[in-house]
Order: sequence, then C-alpha cells, then structure tokens
Amino acid sequence: MKKTQNSKPPIELKKNEEFILKIFGKNLKAKRISMDYSQDTVAYISGLSRSYYAEVELGKRNISLINIVKIAVALDIELNELMYSTEFKKFFK
Amino acid sequence: MKKTQNSKPPIELKKNEEFILKIFGKNLKAKRISMDYSQDTVAYISGLSRSYYAEVELGKRNISLINIVKIAVALDIELNELMYSTEFKKFFK
Repeated sequence: MKKTQNSKPPIELKKNEEFILKIFGKNLKAKRISMDYSQDTVAYISGLSRSYYAEVELGKRNISLINIVKIAVALDIELNELMYSTEFKKFFK
Repeated sequence: MKKTQNSKPPIELKKNEEFILKIFGKNLKAKRISMDYSQDTVAYISGLSRSYYAEVELGKRNISLINIVKIAVALDIELNELMYSTEFKKFFK
C-alpha cells in the first residue's frame, strides 16, 4: 500500500529559483575558468550558442537536463560534481 | 589569453539524449520506491502534476534544473546524489 499523500506541504521554491540558477552558473564558470576555456569554446564544444551559454552562467536560463549534460561533457566534469554545492544544502534537511 | 577554439569537435549527443533522460528517470524511481512514496505524493510535494512527474520517470521529459531541484527536495535527496550514475560515466573521459 503506497502513501498517496503525506503531511509535508508542497514546496515553495519560487523565491529560491533564481538563487539555484545562479549557483549552478557560478559552478559552471568556476570550472570553465579553471580549464582556461572561453565561453565561446564551451559553447562550441557543447553545441550551444554562445549567448545562451553566457546566460546560463549568469543564472538567467532554466537549463534543461540535456543541455546540462552537454556542458558537463564539454567541461569534462561529472554531473554529480557539477551539481554539488554546499549552498544547495539549505534546501535539504 | 583565453582559448577561443580547441581541437575537440562539437559533441554529438542526440542519440544519447533519450538514454540520459531514462537513466535520470530510473534514479528518481529507485529513490521514490525506497521512500515508499507514490508518484502522486512526489508530484504533490514538488508542486508538479502527476502526469508530468510520471513522464519524467519514464525519461520522456527533458526536465529543467528548477524542476530537478523541486523533485530532489521532495525526495530529500541531494542533487549530486540524484545526478550520479555509473552509466553517465561513458560520456566522460
């Protein structure tokens, strides 16, 4: 018998969404800089436009999983490493 | 001086995209089952529709980062743990 409801209220994430995208972008930028890649290079390897990639780094795009993987491959960073941030921990108990 | 180009060709990911989404969905489902949650419960807590959530588990949706975070919070699993898969390793050198 599965639970179909539980006592937790639905998550209110809206106010944190911008924050999440910004942290993710910061992670990307740090990794890119450490590899001495330009935004052009990462965009080229990952097959995305430079303007899109630049907006992702600025936290202005709600990037999809497929594009996250493309960029991770371009930066040669594993997904779990890319998604790690001590700042994300505040969302988890 | 930044590199603006390098010798790597653009990534051809299309044929692997479905695979990536399926692995991610499998990770979600495994975690959900381990918590004895129904799809309804996870959808309710994360504020997504059940049909959308069900499609994500089936790897039929190219989910966005914000929705990944919502589901991760609902399942109380950290992002880096959710994104980890030995099967993803094939995309990385």
